[in-house]
Amino acid sequence: MKNLGYYNGEYGLLEEMKIPMNDRVCYFGDGVYDATYSRNHVIFALDEHIERFFNSAGLLRIKIPYSKEELKEILKDMVKKVDCGEQFVYWQVTRGTAMRNHAFPDTPANLWITLKPANIKDMSEKAKLITLEDTRFLHCNIKTLNLLPSVIAAQKTEEAGCQEAVFHRGDRVTECAHSNVSIIKDGIFKTAPADNLILPGIARAHIIKMCKKFEIPVNETAFTLKELMEADEVVVTSSGQFCITACEIDGKPVGGKAPEIIKKLQDALLNEFLEETKEE
Amino acid sequence: MKNLGYYNGEYGLLEEMKIPMNDRVCYFGDGVYDATYSRNHVIFALDEHIERFFNSAGLLRIKIPYSKEELKEILKDMVKKVDCGEQFVYWQVTRGTAMRNHAFPDTPANLWITLKPANIKDMSEKAKLITLEDTRFLHCNIKTLNLLPSVIAAQKTEEAGCQEAVFHRGDRVTECAHSNVSIIKDGIFKTAPADNLILPGIARAHIIKMCKKFEIPVNETAFTLKELMEADEVVVTSSGQFCITACEIDGKPVGGKAPEIIKKLQDALLNEFLEETKEE
Repeated sequence: MKNLGYYNGEYGLLEEMKIPMNDRVCYFGDGVYDATYSRNHVIFALDEHIERFFNSAGLLRIKIPYSKEELKEILKDMVKKVDCGEQFVYWQVTRGTAMRNHAFPDTPANLWITLKPANIKDMSEKAKLITLEDTRFLHCNIKTLNLLPSVIAAQKTEEAGCQEAVFHRGDRVTECAHSNVSIIKDGIFKTAPADNLILPGIARAHIIKMCKKFEIPVNETAFTLKELMEADEVVVTSSGQFCITACEIDGKPVGGKAPEIIKKLQDALLNEFLEETKEE
Repeated sequence: MKNLGYYNGEYGLLEEMKIPMNDRVCYFGDGVYDATYSRNHVIFALDEHIERFFNSAGLLRIKIPYSKEELKEILKDMVKKVDCGEQFVYWQVTRGTAMRNHAFPDTPANLWITLKPANIKDMSEKAKLITLEDTRFLHCNIKTLNLLPSVIAAQKTEEAGCQEAVFHRGDRVTECAHSNVSIIKDGIFKTAPADNLILPGIARAHIIKMCKKFEIPVNETAFTLKELMEADEVVVTSSGQFCITACEIDGKPVGGKAPEIIKKLQDALLNEFLEETKEE
């Protein structure tokens, strides 16, 4: 099982790949990314991830040097290069290679791809969470490579023996360090609105779609830490884990009071994934 | 005149240097930097820059793989490798090389250095500024590689035909995109306190020291956009430009009403630089 890297048309073993020292990612984190799973060499929800990727780049005025269709073909070709059909497919674009200078350079953007073998995780596992003040910038709707606050949060989470960190700005819960977070209370699915304080998660969009299918009311309104702690279920969604629930936050038990709704949503999400990525 | 790059002990022409694709800078901007001038192969204010660099790294728990003395020797050796004694000396540390995973890896940090020929700029030139809402994270006291908001600000500044952008959070002026900003009003030097919303600038520290030497009162209190526009002088300080003043903000004339104080401070800063970096 090998990890594959790609940079501007060249590819090889990821651990052996090198990139120019003057790629603007090196000095500014000047780029955006997206990621999803492939199974049976089929990339899941690719259209949606490509849409979000182009949107992230556009918001920072990074010109992706390919059309959406061209990029999809490049990604599809890449996942065919590896034997294992189950991969975590990650790609990013950085704003060119040039001598360090903050203003935009007159050079084309760079395309990066990495593939590593990975299976989707078991959604029945319950997560323990910590809470952290959200000290990030005000562009959390853009999937950028400026990820230091999430790095620090991930380390604190690991040291606490937990799986995710819930960010909050004062009382308002925003999202997790690597996921969106929603709650179920009295049969209603409540999730923060897709403003500049959260990433418009694709797993979040899928779970909202499933709620609507099952006639579970959806309330897109920000909620508080108190509502989080008193929720019937705390739902953590991401493209890496689809949908898991929390059993504990900051050492206090939470959720677990609407398991039948959770099971219905998780099964629907898994089936959608398996169906879309079935052997061609 | 060539640009020199250094990465973990290897060096060469910067434009030809490459670094591992799995350096954490590539996915997270996971590192900190510092920079100053050298003249006659002497690096200016090196002790202060090294102190700040170690402080930035420590706040993010990045372990610099050298002592302060060792790093100073590496930097001094580097500036001797180039013929031209007048250089912009830039260095950074990134949190190791490892497969992408947010939590800290168990690998040593990477040291980067770049040198490019550069002279200090003429301080008598007046700057035109724009104002922008400060949307950055709440760790602006750390000199990180998460610089996207400054990149966007630099581009907007250039497109406006200006030289710097003043950030403000609501009414409160914080700092510029690449500099600190202070004002002089009624003979008093007013500058925002060194909290988590501004970088503790070394040029800022030097100008405060000069104010004290000349018995100019210093008031370390945040000021508003209105105070900025009505100041006798608007003072922009950075390690790249030492001390310049603004003549215009958002197209409106500002400052220019205390030129004798400015001249005294600029001369003192320049003399200090020339003295410290005189031929050995």
